[in-house]
Amino acid sequence: MAEAVAILGSTPRTLDALLRALPGEWMAANEGNETWSPFDVLGHLIHGERTDWVPRARIILEHGEARVFEPFDRFAQFVDSEGRTVASLLDEFAVLRQQSLRDLAALQITAADLDRRGRHPAFGAVTLRQLLSTWVAHDFDHLVQISRVLARQYSDEVGPWRAYLRVVREAHE
Amino acid sequence: MAEAVAILGSTPRTLDALLRALPGEWMAANEGNETWSPFDVLGHLIHGERTDWVPRARIILEHGEARVFEPFDRFAQFVDSEGRTVASLLDEFAVLRQQSLRDLAALQITAADLDRRGRHPAFGAVTLRQLLSTWVAHDFDHLVQISRVLARQYSDEVGPWRAYLRVVREAHE
Repeated sequence: MAEAVAILGSTPRTLDALLRALPGEWMAANEGNETWSPFDVLGHLIHGERTDWVPRARIILEHGEARVFEPFDRFAQFVDSEGRTVASLLDEFAVLRQQSLRDLAALQITAADLDRRGRHPAFGAVTLRQLLSTWVAHDFDHLVQISRVLARQYSDEVGPWRAYLRVVREAHE
Repeated sequence: MAEAVAILGSTPRTLDALLRALPGEWMAANEGNETWSPFDVLGHLIHGERTDWVPRARIILEHGEARVFEPFDRFAQFVDSEGRTVASLLDEFAVLRQQSLRDLAALQITAADLDRRGRHPAFGAVTLRQLLSTWVAHDFDHLVQISRVLARQYSDEVGPWRAYLRVVREAHE
């Protein structure tokens, strides 16, 4: 738990360092079709703080498997982030994450609690341990996504070095 | 150029936020076989500051294609980082990157200079623009790699959520 909380607490700083100074067109870049830009991912992470992680942990602790989680809206950010600046999204994410970790601490989760179960609308039974592990892995998963989009912004400019840059190369294969 | 410099300047902060608080075993985790851990990548980035980016930019500006770049040692970090702490590598990288950007500024590179050519030991002719673009893309490429290794640390703990976490899922396919 302490490990997970330390990692979750550092994500806003990581994203801030990575994204705050980026040119606007990089924030809006995606990988084609319906893929997400760094701007979209940031909105998605904010929506997760509001509706996913701690709210679901509470449902597990209060209702167990008797109450199915609210389905998570994977497209909420396309409405919620409209007209927002990157700076304001970064600020909001930092505040919400800090609040999430305060709320998590207040739940005083014990080692035994980690095995308690809730009900996911698609997967059925899941444990609190799986939910909290997913929260951490989800941060890294989206950090991969954002960094991948950014790495590919100079796909053409790098010329022959593309051969040595795995992420850039894969976009061309 | 200004864009590239801003991004290059933020990478030490990003890596610091991402890595400084991580448990030691996460820093040492890799993707099997000869793949690199976050600790290895950090040493590789340090070696790049010392021998790759600015030194090669200097060769292009001073010697053009007449002098082939020194081949880059992709394994230097396995010797250089031995016995080092993560904190000391992060500190060193931050200092070296700052120095690199000061050195780069001192070169007073013009728009016309970006088309000047040097000679890469494997690729042959490359431009200064390609070298500098690669420096930026290389930061992001390794940020993808580090985040991917970290995302996979909870591959088993996430349970059924694996299906929704692309990077974790791909490690199981």
